Amino acid sequence: MAKKVVTMGELLLRLTTPGHSRFAQARSFDAIYGGAEANVAVFLANMGMDSYFLTRLPDNEIGDSAVNFIRNYGVKTDYILRGGDRVGIYFLEKGTSVRPSKVVYDRKNSSMCDIDVNDIDFETVFKDAEWFHLSGITPALGGKCILLVEKAVEYAKKKGVHISMDLNYRAKMWSYDKFESVVSKFIKDIDVCFGWLSSEEEGGTHKIADFAKQGIDLKKFENTFSNMQKRYRIKYMVTTLRENYSADNNALSALIYDGKELYQSNKYNFTIKDRVGTGDAFAAGLIYKLANGADFREALEFGVASGVFKHTIEGDFNICTEDEIMTLVNGNTSGSVQR
Amino acid sequence: MAKKVVTMGELLLRLTTPGHSRFAQARSFDAIYGGAEANVAVFLANMGMDSYFLTRLPDNEIGDSAVNFIRNYGVKTDYILRGGDRVGIYFLEKGTSVRPSKVVYDRKNSSMCDIDVNDIDFETVFKDAEWFHLSGITPALGGKCILLVEKAVEYAKKKGVHISMDLNYRAKMWSYDKFESVVSKFIKDIDVCFGWLSSEEEGGTHKIADFAKQGIDLKKFENTFSNMQKRYRIKYMVTTLRENYSADNNALSALIYDGKELYQSNKYNFTIKDRVGTGDAFAAGLIYKLANGADFREALEFGVASGVFKHTIEGDFNICTEDEIMTLVNGNTSGSVQR
Amino acid sequence: MAKKVVTMGELLLRLTTPGHSRFAQARSFDAIYGGAEANVAVFLANMGMDSYFLTRLPDNEIGDSAVNFIRNYGVKTDYILRGGDRVGIYFLEKGTSVRPSKVVYDRKNSSMCDIDVNDIDFETVFKDAEWFHLSGITPALGGKCILLVEKAVEYAKKKGVHISMDLNYRAKMWSYDKFESVVSKFIKDIDVCFGWLSSEEEGGTHKIADFAKQGIDLKKFENTFSNMQKRYRIKYMVTTLRENYSADNNALSALIYDGKELYQSNKYNFTIKDRVGTGDAFAAGLIYKLANGADFREALEFGVASGVFKHTIEGDFNICTEDEIMTLVNGNTSGSVQR
Amino acid sequence: MAKKVVTMGELLLRLTTPGHSRFAQARSFDAIYGGAEANVAVFLANMGMDSYFLTRLPDNEIGDSAVNFIRNYGVKTDYILRGGDRVGIYFLEKGTSVRPSKVVYDRKNSSMCDIDVNDIDFETVFKDAEWFHLSGITPALGGKCILLVEKAVEYAKKKGVHISMDLNYRAKMWSYDKFESVVSKFIKDIDVCFGWLSSEEEGGTHKIADFAKQGIDLKKFENTFSNMQKRYRIKYMVTTLRENYSADNNALSALIYDGKELYQSNKYNFTIKDRVGTGDAFAAGLIYKLANGADFREALEFGVASGVFKHTIEGDFNICTEDEIMTLVNGNTSGSVQR
Amino acid sequence: MAKKVVTMGELLLRLTTPGHSRFAQARSFDAIYGGAEANVAVFLANMGMDSYFLTRLPDNEIGDSAVNFIRNYGVKTDYILRGGDRVGIYFLEKGTSVRPSKVVYDRKNSSMCDIDVNDIDFETVFKDAEWFHLSGITPALGGKCILLVEKAVEYAKKKGVHISMDLNYRAKMWSYDKFESVVSKFIKDIDVCFGWLSSEEEGGTHKIADFAKQGIDLKKFENTFSNMQKRYRIKYMVTTLRENYSADNNALSALIYDGKELYQSNKYNFTIKDRVGTGDAFAAGLIYKLANGADFREALEFGVASGVFKHTIEGDFNICTEDEIMTLVNGNTSGSVQR
Amino acid sequence: MAKKVVTMGELLLRLTTPGHSRFAQARSFDAIYGGAEANVAVFLANMGMDSYFLTRLPDNEIGDSAVNFIRNYGVKTDYILRGGDRVGIYFLEKGTSVRPSKVVYDRKNSSMCDIDVNDIDFETVFKDAEWFHLSGITPALGGKCILLVEKAVEYAKKKGVHISMDLNYRAKMWSYDKFESVVSKFIKDIDVCFGWLSSEEEGGTHKIADFAKQGIDLKKFENTFSNMQKRYRIKYMVTTLRENYSADNNALSALIYDGKELYQSNKYNFTIKDRVGTGDAFAAGLIYKLANGADFREALEFGVASGVFKHTIEGDFNICTEDEIMTLVNGNTSGSVQR
Repeated sequence: MAKKVVTMGELLLRLTTPGHSRFAQARSFDAIYGGAEANVAVFLANMGMDSYFLTRLPDNEIGDSAVNFIRNYGVKTDYILRGGDRVGIYFLEKGTSVRPSKVVYDRKNSSMCDIDVNDIDFETVFKDAEWFHLSGITPALGGKCILLVEKAVEYAKKKGVHISMDLNYRAKMWSYDKFESVVSKFIKDIDVCFGWLSSEEEGGTHKIADFAKQGIDLKKFENTFSNMQKRYRIKYMVTTLRENYSADNNALSALIYDGKELYQSNKYNFTIKDRVGTGDAFAAGLIYKLANGADFREALEFGVASGVFKHTIEGDFNICTEDEIMTLVNGNTSGSVQR
Repeated sequence: MAKKVVTMGELLLRLTTPGHSRFAQARSFDAIYGGAEANVAVFLANMGMDSYFLTRLPDNEIGDSAVNFIRNYGVKTDYILRGGDRVGIYFLEKGTSVRPSKVVYDRKNSSMCDIDVNDIDFETVFKDAEWFHLSGITPALGGKCILLVEKAVEYAKKKGVHISMDLNYRAKMWSYDKFESVVSKFIKDIDVCFGWLSSEEEGGTHKIADFAKQGIDLKKFENTFSNMQKRYRIKYMVTTLRENYSADNNALSALIYDGKELYQSNKYNFTIKDRVGTGDAFAAGLIYKLANGADFREALEFGVASGVFKHTIEGDFNICTEDEIMTLVNGNTSGSVQR
Repeated sequence: MAKKVVTMGELLLRLTTPGHSRFAQARSFDAIYGGAEANVAVFLANMGMDSYFLTRLPDNEIGDSAVNFIRNYGVKTDYILRGGDRVGIYFLEKGTSVRPSKVVYDRKNSSMCDIDVNDIDFETVFKDAEWFHLSGITPALGGKCILLVEKAVEYAKKKGVHISMDLNYRAKMWSYDKFESVVSKFIKDIDVCFGWLSSEEEGGTHKIADFAKQGIDLKKFENTFSNMQKRYRIKYMVTTLRENYSADNNALSALIYDGKELYQSNKYNFTIKDRVGTGDAFAAGLIYKLANGADFREALEFGVASGVFKHTIEGDFNICTEDEIMTLVNGNTSGSVQR
Repeated sequence: MAKKVVTMGELLLRLTTPGHSRFAQARSFDAIYGGAEANVAVFLANMGMDSYFLTRLPDNEIGDSAVNFIRNYGVKTDYILRGGDRVGIYFLEKGTSVRPSKVVYDRKNSSMCDIDVNDIDFETVFKDAEWFHLSGITPALGGKCILLVEKAVEYAKKKGVHISMDLNYRAKMWSYDKFESVVSKFIKDIDVCFGWLSSEEEGGTHKIADFAKQGIDLKKFENTFSNMQKRYRIKYMVTTLRENYSADNNALSALIYDGKELYQSNKYNFTIKDRVGTGDAFAAGLIYKLANGADFREALEFGVASGVFKHTIEGDFNICTEDEIMTLVNGNTSGSVQR
Repeated sequence: MAKKVVTMGELLLRLTTPGHSRFAQARSFDAIYGGAEANVAVFLANMGMDSYFLTRLPDNEIGDSAVNFIRNYGVKTDYILRGGDRVGIYFLEKGTSVRPSKVVYDRKNSSMCDIDVNDIDFETVFKDAEWFHLSGITPALGGKCILLVEKAVEYAKKKGVHISMDLNYRAKMWSYDKFESVVSKFIKDIDVCFGWLSSEEEGGTHKIADFAKQGIDLKKFENTFSNMQKRYRIKYMVTTLRENYSADNNALSALIYDGKELYQSNKYNFTIKDRVGTGDAFAAGLIYKLANGADFREALEFGVASGVFKHTIEGDFNICTEDEIMTLVNGNTSGSVQR
Repeated sequence: MAKKVVTMGELLLRLTTPGHSRFAQARSFDAIYGGAEANVAVFLANMGMDSYFLTRLPDNEIGDSAVNFIRNYGVKTDYILRGGDRVGIYFLEKGTSVRPSKVVYDRKNSSMCDIDVNDIDFETVFKDAEWFHLSGITPALGGKCILLVEKAVEYAKKKGVHISMDLNYRAKMWSYDKFESVVSKFIKDIDVCFGWLSSEEEGGTHKIADFAKQGIDLKKFENTFSNMQKRYRIKYMVTTLRENYSADNNALSALIYDGKELYQSNKYNFTIKDRVGTGDAFAAGLIYKLANGADFREALEFGVASGVFKHTIEGDFNICTEDEIMTLVNGNTSGSVQR
């Protein structure tokens, strides 16, 4: 019987210019629906888990289309609330070579921002659930979402559900101080934490960085993780390490810390079709393996391979099979046809 | 030397599903920029007028694209303000046969809603202008836009600029009472008025109606127009008369009243590629001819032919030449190739 | 609580040339998945029913895509069996004006043809089900499918599930004699029958006909229906009446007979985007209303309006809301935009 | 054994805006190769004749693509000369409803204009040929093409090949006087003539006309044909009669005169996907039947049905089978699917 | 005068997802027709040879489209038989970076499988032919195709036609033992053999391998080739050597053995648009040069360059000129524009 | 206040096959308008300059579309003359990997070739202009264009406008001797010269070369530039240095010589979306900085970064912001997303 997992977050309409064309050239947009947490939900459904997504969408045709879009990939949409004004939007222009991708956000005042925590029947939501995943983007949506996150984590914890959170601090959405004060309230209930909370003074200066240029200081990472874990008693601290060579070519590896060992995964070099959702694919891969009892090192390797694989797929979702990810984990990255 | 004309209003991003596909089927949207008043501005530029458009757009790539889009068709964009949060959006699914088109609006909190009338140098805007056109949609955007409309009409009047207004009451945007109280303040300064202000009690019950079913009561129209003109001293009262046979097939004629005569135009039967902007094309055609000294009956005929022609063109704009419109006015609607 | 409905049949890959291009011109095919019974299942899911589809698909990526495709539209895919060689295919070239549409079938040896009735847990399938729908295409797929149909009807009957069947005799797939001998075995268990069984000798010569040319002989229909009902004790006998004016323009009405009254629905004239699945949309509309307790005349009107509406939508499925169908039932076929 | 037929003329690159979009909206052009005579050649190949096309194309990739394009549809390209500067081009914007299609020609200085009649081995070209078809567009291309036409007709006549010519006078390409003086030199060698030579003074005022407006004066046609036939001893005089209701809707019939009887074909009403090449499809249908020994009335009916059918197909070519045309000839224009 | 060459094999419909999208994302398929031997035929036609292709296709529109598709590229289709049930199909999803391409076959029960060798007039087929090419895929299609291959080789040999065969063993289609027992019967009549017959025990373990990982053991190849040649008296033994770095980036060289010398070609590094048909392009290049009297080393170099060039072209066919291939042979792989 | 800049040249219709498909595969062409000098004009408008483009276009819909196309990107079209026969065309097939791009020109007899210098009001054109840019392609169009160039340079010089010229010798258009004799007449009036005039005998053999193979001999460049500058008193001599690794991968740097110092820019490695217009983007970047008072070394760096950036954009134009170019100049070529 498939294990139940719940993810919660916003589902956005992504409007991408065709190919690599610039915004000013576009006479159409490719339209998909996605978002950090939904991307995780889809991957887990692909892996055969009983994957539920919790969000709020307007009761109009755009909201309907968003529901259909993730249902297509096997996500259970029973817990989605309907109401409010709009689906949040982001416009994407995919870069290439020396030209970076560009994102224009138009996500304010979405239905999710206006969610009422009392409309959710957490009892049902977390019934028989094995895992709950959320991200730091949700509380950045405002007061109602902060309440939502607090309640959800509290309830999940009470029901004995494992909890993972991708901190995902977005400087454009709120201040670091606010972020920290909100997250620190419930972070002690998190089992797996992607990223870390820590001011520069404490030596936690590992912001999202380009490791292609500055190299990786494992000692510093161990220090940051260790401090944070001691403070918040998190089981696993995790992060990816990305090296940007161009908009088409990156390398990726990852770190996990369990309080004793800092384990670094294999590193992959690859070319890129679509970079969006690759961090989510990484998180989802790791969660999938941990939720199914794997060793944390094995889980990390599966996570990184999942993140790498996602770069080859258009859209937000890592549409694939467990076998395809395992091919990478097993060292075959030659991309040769199977006839 | 081309005459200068100024139009003012919101410029929206229109996202249309491909062909006649339903929202739930769309994996892309055709993307254009348009809006009631911009549509008028483009037609007037096509006709060779010195056509300026005044609006406010965000200072991002979507705003840039909107500017480019109307500049492409020859509209002067010098008076466009930049700032604010977002370009208003509407989603469109084009109907066919017995299935009506569907519009989903997502236009709240646009840059235009937040315009500051003090940022506009009306002295420059109306310098040497022959005509100013606006619509009742702009004041529906909120307090700042009401102020904008009032000031603009006041200034235009003072400078001796002819003013036309398409009342365009939208019940989804505000109440009729609010609409009437706002519009009635400055409607006496309008020279050409599309639509009418009048409660049902006064007998002015000619709401946007389907004349295919109910027929046209010219007496009632004359009464409504006459009452309104007496009250507000408007030079020309105008309206279109549409007959809906299916989403692909309509008939169109129009009425103009100059205080003495109620003149009805020729009626055209036609099939439809894109119905959006056809009322604007009608208004623009009439304005073009009046601004260039034509008799009001001749202007009405040109306006109707322009409105009819627009139904054959994808998008919001009536891209055409004066000759093409005159072919219809002269009775050739056979659509036969000119080789 | 939504009522449960089960439909059973084959899910085909439909490959359509772009626009109205001929096969020899096509450099790509639009790809969707559909089929007579799946089309019914999707409509019932759209209407909010708990709609399950039972079929067999190969365990490869094309099979996965077929599952995803109907899941997208809300159909429950829990009862779909996986195995066998291939997804059946049909190629479609859409006609226009005097040119008819063309279908090239490539459906032999599909996974469905090879289904083993013992792999199905009918107990679970029909648990709490309100309605079961099937068609005469399934037994045409061969011996294993004849067995399947017999068992399914037997089981459904035993569980008190209402049963509807679209006879859908296809002369290209099997002989009429074989068809009759198979269907007559279980037809007495059917509650609602689309079409009729009857040899020409008996006067039942109402083959699928073009009523545009030959007119409708209601007396003859009443006779045919009455004879058949007496023989098989079917509750409702139903048929559509189509008038073909061109590949783009048809008229449609329908008949229902309850043993006492032959009721004829309203007739609609309309233009056509996609004719495939319109009979299924009709059946689905009728079933939806009957399953929810409506009078059979009301159900017929809803069915016809549903069938008419489908002609405006690309693909096999009637993607719509109950409100949209009711707009037609209520007499508004003007296709005018709702702003 | 298939009969050999030779057609001669220019092969142009046709660049069409997508759908019905205007030139100013196009960001791409659909690209095909066609032309009056090539359209005839393709139809005859479709009908199973041994169809050769004679033209001249530049020795570059655009010339290669033109050759490939007609070879695709079974035309023999062995007699095509290679050399000269360019493939002639025409830009097409397809009209709809009241908006006519627009053609912008860019065909001057093409490789065909510069053809050297001495490069052609007419002995081989006309060996065993049953029929030769040409049009009045070729001599309009200039002196070298006039020479070509004269020589080709002379040679074909000498070899006993049947000759048909579509006069196709184009006022934009040359004067009527020049046209007449050139054509009258060899018209006596033509067996089947589409159109007629005759000044207005002589009462031959049947220019390409819109018979929807002016009606058809059969007496006048008989007179014109009779005069011309007497003068030039042509076996069959032929013309189509088109009624333009809109850019999407026409009616078509045709006339043939054999010196004794003026026979008028059935008339068809139809909607239009692509009007280009419909006259060529008519001519080709008639030629096909005459070349295979049919009665001239039967041939005319086949020609008209072929012309009508072409209106349903995108591009210049009438891609179809003899059966499809015969369905129309036999009175079935209902466009109903054959399953 | 161009030399005549005959190739024989199956022509499949290839359905490719757009860009690099996954099967589950595809809403359309790019449609072309190709296959190992047809790909050779097209290249030889491109090079100016009189290239005939022998296959069997159903007598329906999909079969017609397949004929047209290769006729387009200049292949002579006179020897194609029509009849049987269906065109074999394969679905293709093109990989990128670490993600391999995926192929789903749906080729069983095709018209080719059911070919009757007695329907072929080998006398005509091989009349004046210089070369005959076939592959090991054809006998894998079943008994009728084994008969076909045996007869064809026998006849070609008798007529003194040179014969080349690409062994192309496909483990998914049949067992190695069956393969060997069938092929060994006629392999002694082959002049040029791509690949080799040899069990692992004999040291012939050079299966299709990834030489990027394991390196190239020339000694072993010489041994394998030498053993096989001695046994079957084949003139030239040939193979490509591919190094897979990713789905977008490979290296390619090749080996030829004439009984005395094992010659290795230049090696090329390149990026990949479409990998399908590159082995066929290699074979075709080699055959072209050998058939026209080139030294076997020169022929190998031309073959490898042809194979490399094919990687840059979408679809199965190596559409190019001899000059383009020679540019690579001559050492210019810089891809710089020729203006 | 933005500085005024005038560029003069031909505006061509560019027809590109989709993706990297070959001419023979194309069923459509992407259509844009561009040309060496127009590309410069668009970049300067993007940078906020008051950018005017002077050309001649036919008075038809294709000419209109060309005007619209550059107006879209902010170029002022007031000085464009209308008349003549046609828009010049070039067909483009984009190469990849070892396959070079291919261009087929069809630009003879364009409206520009036939321009009458007396139709231009140079007084107005150069009023308040800061800079004038032209290229050596214009005089290659024939006598009328030679006259145009001479007059324009003479007038610009007289008005104190800075002049830059991209020599752009095209061997396919005219002989080197003719080129030199024409250009040498007015080259002394040029301030910034891209490329050089110099016969091989003088040691000026730096033709457009592939520096990937032959390396860069700075001494020789200094010599060539020094000789030329002495002879013609040009302020800055400039050239790019390109290294071709494949059609997808190049490196670029540049040289500038001011009579004293030969300064070499940074070198960039990058992948390529569209190589057309990259030299123009380089020139435009340099001109922009020089026209706004930058040091010539700084201007060169900006120019090279601009040229590099253009390789990432489809079409002829370098659509970008100054910030985007400065990101490269400042050393960030990692293409990492800015969120």
